[in-house]
Amino acid sequence: MEQRVRHFQEELDALQARLLEMGGLAEERVRVAIQGLVQREPALIERVMRGDEPLNELHIEVDSRCFTLLALYQPMATDLRAIVAAVKINTDLERVGDLAVNIAEAARRYVTHAPVKKLIDIPQMGDIAQTMLRDALDSFVRRDTRLAQQVLNEDDRLDGLKTQVFRELLTYMLHDPTTVEPALDLILISRQLERIGDHATNIAEDVIFMVSALDVRHHPPAPISE
Amino acid sequence: MEQRVRHFQEELDALQARLLEMGGLAEERVRVAIQGLVQREPALIERVMRGDEPLNELHIEVDSRCFTLLALYQPMATDLRAIVAAVKINTDLERVGDLAVNIAEAARRYVTHAPVKKLIDIPQMGDIAQTMLRDALDSFVRRDTRLAQQVLNEDDRLDGLKTQVFRELLTYMLHDPTTVEPALDLILISRQLERIGDHATNIAEDVIFMVSALDVRHHPPAPISE
Repeated sequence: MEQRVRHFQEELDALQARLLEMGGLAEERVRVAIQGLVQREPALIERVMRGDEPLNELHIEVDSRCFTLLALYQPMATDLRAIVAAVKINTDLERVGDLAVNIAEAARRYVTHAPVKKLIDIPQMGDIAQTMLRDALDSFVRRDTRLAQQVLNEDDRLDGLKTQVFRELLTYMLHDPTTVEPALDLILISRQLERIGDHATNIAEDVIFMVSALDVRHHPPAPISE
Repeated sequence: MEQRVRHFQEELDALQARLLEMGGLAEERVRVAIQGLVQREPALIERVMRGDEPLNELHIEVDSRCFTLLALYQPMATDLRAIVAAVKINTDLERVGDLAVNIAEAARRYVTHAPVKKLIDIPQMGDIAQTMLRDALDSFVRRDTRLAQQVLNEDDRLDGLKTQVFRELLTYMLHDPTTVEPALDLILISRQLERIGDHATNIAEDVIFMVSALDVRHHPPAPISE
C-alpha cells in the first residue's frame, strides 16, 4: 500500500511537470506572437502560426495521464480535486495556444499596413498575461492560494488596459479612415490577450477551490454554541 | 452490487439532466441577447446582463455532482470518461453564459447609435450557435458521434458568416466614420457568437473522444496476421 501511494505521488508529480511544460510553451508562444507584432517580423509571426503541434501533443498526453491516474488509483479528496483541476487546466493551456495563433493571424495582417501608433499598452498586456499564466501554474503546483488570489487581482489591470487600448484606437479610427483596418486588428489582439488572462484566472480559481475544499476538510467548522 | 450500479446510473442520469438544463438556459440567454439587439429592446438586453445567477449556480452544482460520483463510485472506463466529459462540458456551458453577457454589453452600446444596417447574418449566426449547442448536448446524452460530427461541420458555416460580417462592416467603417463605433460592436458580437460555436465544438469533440475510446475497448484491433 505504501508503494502504491508512492507510485501515485510520482505519477502526480509527472503530471504537474507536464502542465508546467505546457505553461512554458503557451507563454513562449504568446511572447513570440507579440514580439513579431512589435518588431513587425513575419518570421516570428509565421513561427507562431505553424508551431501549435507540441502543445497539442502535450494536451493529449496530459488528458490521458489524468484518466490513468483516476482509473488506476481511484484517488480521494485532495488528490481527486488536484486531478480534476489538472483536466481543466490542461484545457485552458491548450486554448491559450490557440489564442496565440489568433494573435499571430491578426499581427500578420497588421504588419501589411503602416503602423497606427507606437505599441506600448499591448506589449504590456502581453507581459501581464504571461505573468498571470506563470503565477497561476505556480500557485497550482505549490497549492498557494495567495498567489492564486494575486492572479485574480492582475486580471483587473489587464481589463483596464484593454479598455484604454480600445478607447485610444477608436479615436484613431474616427479621425483617419486609413487606420480603421490596422486599428481593428490591434483591438482584436488586445481582446485575445484579455482572454489569455481569463484562462489564467480560471486556473487560479480552480486552485482556490481545490485548496479551500481541503481546508474545509482539515478544519471542519466549530459546532454552533448557543 | 446490483443496487450500487443502479444508484450510479441514477446519479449519472441526474447529472446529465442538469447539463441539459444548463444548456437550455445558456441557449435561451444567447437567444434573448440577440433578440434584444435586433429589436433594439433595452429590457431584453438588461435581462441578459443581470440573469447569470441560475447558470452559475448550476455550474457549481454540476461540479459538485461530478466530484461525488468520482469519489463515491470510482467509475471505470466509459463511466469515468462520461464524468470527465461532464466536468469539461460544465465549464463550456458556464462560459457560454458569460459570452451572452458580453453580447448584451455590446448590444447595449449598439442600440444607442443609429442602426448600421438591417441585421441578417448576425441573427443567423445566433441561430446556428444555438443549434450547435443543443445538438452537442444531445450528442453527449445519446452518445451520438454522428450528431457530434454534424456540430463540427456547422462550425465552418459559422466561421464563414463571421468573415462575411467582418468584411461587410469594414466597408461601412471605411466609408462612413459615423458607423465606426456601432459597426465595431457588431463585429465583437459576431466574434462572441463564433466563440459560442467553439464551445459547442469542444463539447462535440469530447463526445467523439468519449465514445470512440469506448469503441476501441469494445472492439480491440484484430491481431496482425503475417
